[in-house]
Amino acid sequence: MRWKCTVAYDGTQFEGWQSQPGGNTIQDFIEARLAVMFERRVVIHGSGRTDSGVHAREQVFHFDADWSHGPDKLIRALRTGYPDSIQVYKAEEVDEDFHARFSVVKKRYTYQFFEGFADPFETRYFWSTGNRRMDVERMNTAGKLLSGKNDFSAFTANPGEERDDDPVKDLSLLRAERIGPRVILAAEADGFLYRMVRSLAGCLFDVGIGKLEPEDVLRIRDSRERKNLVLTAPAEGLFLDRVWY
Amino acid sequence: MRWKCTVAYDGTQFEGWQSQPGGNTIQDFIEARLAVMFERRVVIHGSGRTDSGVHAREQVFHFDADWSHGPDKLIRALRTGYPDSIQVYKAEEVDEDFHARFSVVKKRYTYQFFEGFADPFETRYFWSTGNRRMDVERMNTAGKLLSGKNDFSAFTANPGEERDDDPVKDLSLLRAERIGPRVILAAEADGFLYRMVRSLAGCLFDVGIGKLEPEDVLRIRDSRERKNLVLTAPAEGLFLDRVWY
Repeated sequence: MRWKCTVAYDGTQFEGWQSQPGGNTIQDFIEARLAVMFERRVVIHGSGRTDSGVHAREQVFHFDADWSHGPDKLIRALRTGYPDSIQVYKAEEVDEDFHARFSVVKKRYTYQFFEGFADPFETRYFWSTGNRRMDVERMNTAGKLLSGKNDFSAFTANPGEERDDDPVKDLSLLRAERIGPRVILAAEADGFLYRMVRSLAGCLFDVGIGKLEPEDVLRIRDSRERKNLVLTAPAEGLFLDRVWY
Repeated sequence: MRWKCTVAYDGTQFEGWQSQPGGNTIQDFIEARLAVMFERRVVIHGSGRTDSGVHAREQVFHFDADWSHGPDKLIRALRTGYPDSIQVYKAEEVDEDFHARFSVVKKRYTYQFFEGFADPFETRYFWSTGNRRMDVERMNTAGKLLSGKNDFSAFTANPGEERDDDPVKDLSLLRAERIGPRVILAAEADGFLYRMVRSLAGCLFDVGIGKLEPEDVLRIRDSRERKNLVLTAPAEGLFLDRVWY
């Protein structure tokens, strides 16, 4: 019996999604809870990893376990036993051929900038850019140039471990929107490389503040090499927003 | 030379406003920073205390120190040296007869309820009331009955230390507003007793869910005695919103 669950989390205090020896990851907390519920180890499979400090409005995972009390009670059982900053809010039984990672069709991330300093109630969810002002039109010109199916090797970082991801991704959307002092960048693709969104966000930020020209992003992309040119925007501004299957 | 400063803070991780032996209070962090800036102990005087876990959008404090670089540089100096969850954002030189506590004319607090469960990004700022639904009209009927100049001894708690506050306060506003699943209760008065807003919030919540009748609040108030009848709403929903001088 396979269950597909959706979880939101504030990643501030966790060392990312994926299980780590210290146990302070979202996967570890959920698996610890499942171990109590099912009295055995239950492994969960996420749609993908999120880094330390990255948030999710909608992360999806699946696991196999016999649960005969229906989805509502499963959600309720999965809502206790860990901090409020992790909240499972959807559960449904799915076919055995569903896989949270391999069945992904598309994902959306958003990256949140705050011009100036986000107040204490928002600072965990924005990159505060201080005095630097962004020109959103320039950012969107660059975003359009970067869209499409391409090799994004220039926008990934060495994860320090083997990942054999195909560097060719179909980036269907990369678009910034200004809401007062907040600039929200949305990125949609069939898949993302390690640190790809934060690298795109850093690069578009540099375009926004005039450090790069919009056309520069093509040269960077076509180099297919990670260079110091590409800034990695900090984790706190990043949200995994949606996963399509 | 007296400086009046305004600070916002997320109180989640702190043990309240007032200095404590452990040093994990907002006053302690600000004073530690001032000690570095002025190379001596500088005591700050807040408009009042906030409890452990309570937030402030606008808390005011003053201190005496010679600072010749103007308010902007003072704010900048006061914005470093402690967590982002404490942010000084206003500073002005004031007359020596200004006192952050004794010159207060009126204060506003808001108490934030969330019907259901606030998501991981709001849970620090709301009291999630689960399945219990509030009737805001009933709450406002009770709020109106409680408004005015009265003895609020029934809505305070023993602070465990001597406080010789006058129990008579002029409560000029006590009004709830619904915004979707969020219910925001505003309270304005010339002063508030220890735990008074959280007691009023707890009491109005009980009226909202039908556990108390609106008229019951008058009987409670006129008893001038703290009884188990009055629920103290949890700290995380409370914000010090504004201080008038």
